[in-house]
Amino acid sequence: MPRTVVALGGNALTRPGGDHGWKEAVERMRATAGPLAQVAKDGHELVVTHGNGPQVGAALRQNEIAEREVPPRPLAVLNAETEGQIGFLIQQELAPALHHAGVARGIFAMVSRIEVKARDAAFKRPSKPVGRYYSDSEARLYRKRSGWQMAYDGARGGWRRLVPSPRPVAWVEGSEVRRLFDHGFGRRVVLVAGGGGGVPVVRARDGGLTAVDAVIDKDLTSALIAEVIGAETLVIVTDVPAVAVGFQKSWERWLGAVTMEELAKFHRQGEFGEGSMAPKVEAALQFLRHGGRRVVITDIPSLRRGLRDDAGTRITRS
Amino acid sequence: MPRTVVALGGNALTRPGGDHGWKEAVERMRATAGPLAQVAKDGHELVVTHGNGPQVGAALRQNEIAEREVPPRPLAVLNAETEGQIGFLIQQELAPALHHAGVARGIFAMVSRIEVKARDAAFKRPSKPVGRYYSDSEARLYRKRSGWQMAYDGARGGWRRLVPSPRPVAWVEGSEVRRLFDHGFGRRVVLVAGGGGGVPVVRARDGGLTAVDAVIDKDLTSALIAEVIGAETLVIVTDVPAVAVGFQKSWERWLGAVTMEELAKFHRQGEFGEGSMAPKVEAALQFLRHGGRRVVITDIPSLRRGLRDDAGTRITRS
Repeated sequence: MPRTVVALGGNALTRPGGDHGWKEAVERMRATAGPLAQVAKDGHELVVTHGNGPQVGAALRQNEIAEREVPPRPLAVLNAETEGQIGFLIQQELAPALHHAGVARGIFAMVSRIEVKARDAAFKRPSKPVGRYYSDSEARLYRKRSGWQMAYDGARGGWRRLVPSPRPVAWVEGSEVRRLFDHGFGRRVVLVAGGGGGVPVVRARDGGLTAVDAVIDKDLTSALIAEVIGAETLVIVTDVPAVAVGFQKSWERWLGAVTMEELAKFHRQGEFGEGSMAPKVEAALQFLRHGGRRVVITDIPSLRRGLRDDAGTRITRS
Repeated sequence: MPRTVVALGGNALTRPGGDHGWKEAVERMRATAGPLAQVAKDGHELVVTHGNGPQVGAALRQNEIAEREVPPRPLAVLNAETEGQIGFLIQQELAPALHHAGVARGIFAMVSRIEVKARDAAFKRPSKPVGRYYSDSEARLYRKRSGWQMAYDGARGGWRRLVPSPRPVAWVEGSEVRRLFDHGFGRRVVLVAGGGGGVPVVRARDGGLTAVDAVIDKDLTSALIAEVIGAETLVIVTDVPAVAVGFQKSWERWLGAVTMEELAKFHRQGEFGEGSMAPKVEAALQFLRHGGRRVVITDIPSLRRGLRDDAGTRITRS
């Protein structure tokens, strides 16, 4: 069976303008579950990864509002909590879809710890906005009281907390997961792992692992996971059916089959938006450079056809 | 290797009079990790289960305080979140303890869904208090607005929400976990599962599983998990070194080796406090009646000796 990692965006679980509550997440995941189950039916061993931006934002906000009564939990711990939350959601919604598709597989959801390097330059330059927008006076308060780095977002007229976004270098549980897949686990179980990019930990001098206040890009973690389990294909699910060059310009062109060299060239030419397509392209290139065979970037409706090389952007080594 | 389930109480992660925050949980778990690692070193395959009372209480409180801004998540979802949270905590603290003990095992933490019956009488008589204490007027409000059942606690002078506590009947992921253990998984990995009694789900007519607002007793779930994976021994870790009859009376006697018949007789005589030792005794009897070989009820300092039949209360079939 081909081994495939499908990375769902955190926004796959929310609706623009929605309240980002549980009912909305259930509805959204239900729409995603059918196409995912079809991929399993087509014979792929599946690891599902997912983002958690809106969910960890909600948890941070609850932390803040309730802080006088309930001690706030660190960001890394909230990430582990969203792995439980969204892992459970995927289990609940994917199970009936698998059943309906005639696929007899269980679904496991696990906590994934992802090692990052303490010397990663990202710790000196926090760059990833998390949580809500703050007023000028709130921003001053949090800078002073909590030492937060903050950035002003002119478009939304508010300040946001920035946290470091270091590169994932190892999946703590990865070698055992690889072993399980190499012994047939993927024929019986869909695994949900690496949620929200995984819980970031750094290796301490004594060999232990310390959790850090950071957020790992979920697509880079998905690329790492795909590499570790020996997946042939990494699918990065997004809101658009494919990657475009000249996006929303007169010379816009949607990419179908491309090589990693072509894609890297477009990327160097600045074709891909920071914070939207650029990190997905970087994750794709990382996976292919580390031995992966194929990356598909597409949306949920085109997922199955993308894996059949019939839709989406398909990136290969040559 | 003997296969052993160790059930940690939710209070193993909090200190009486503490703030029940993350630092406190880390400190408490650190003290528990050493003895747990010794059990692994002694050659036991280990599944660790845990309670989540204080943690889910904190999440419910955050839900309430922030409800105007952040849509509250259902109780079952919060349970899945605490499985992520406490699973991560156990991974982080147990890993260096295993390393120090010279045990080369990984640690997996998974979301466990536990099936309960929709016709369980517990759904008609909610009995398990969750969350904080409410004033008379708050209790009236929540009864009316949310349809909560509430009970007055005279000792603490407040009302608490009651939720159903149905019996666990099946572990959704259980057969696959059993298969993994039967193929050597337990020699390589300590598994954290069944946290907070597991996420309660009922089987719908279409075969799907629906999450329900309920709390499953974590000791009964631990007994079920021990049965499903074919464990020989279930250890129920509590605050006292053993089970007593005539507890705190002049004829108090601590039980060492007892048979399930003797224990069941003491239980029928009302020796064990509801909400404290009685549910542990019931879980112990359930495991033994379903084929388990031994239950040890003891505290963390006596854990290792308990497993060597040298401390704690050891209950056997005959």
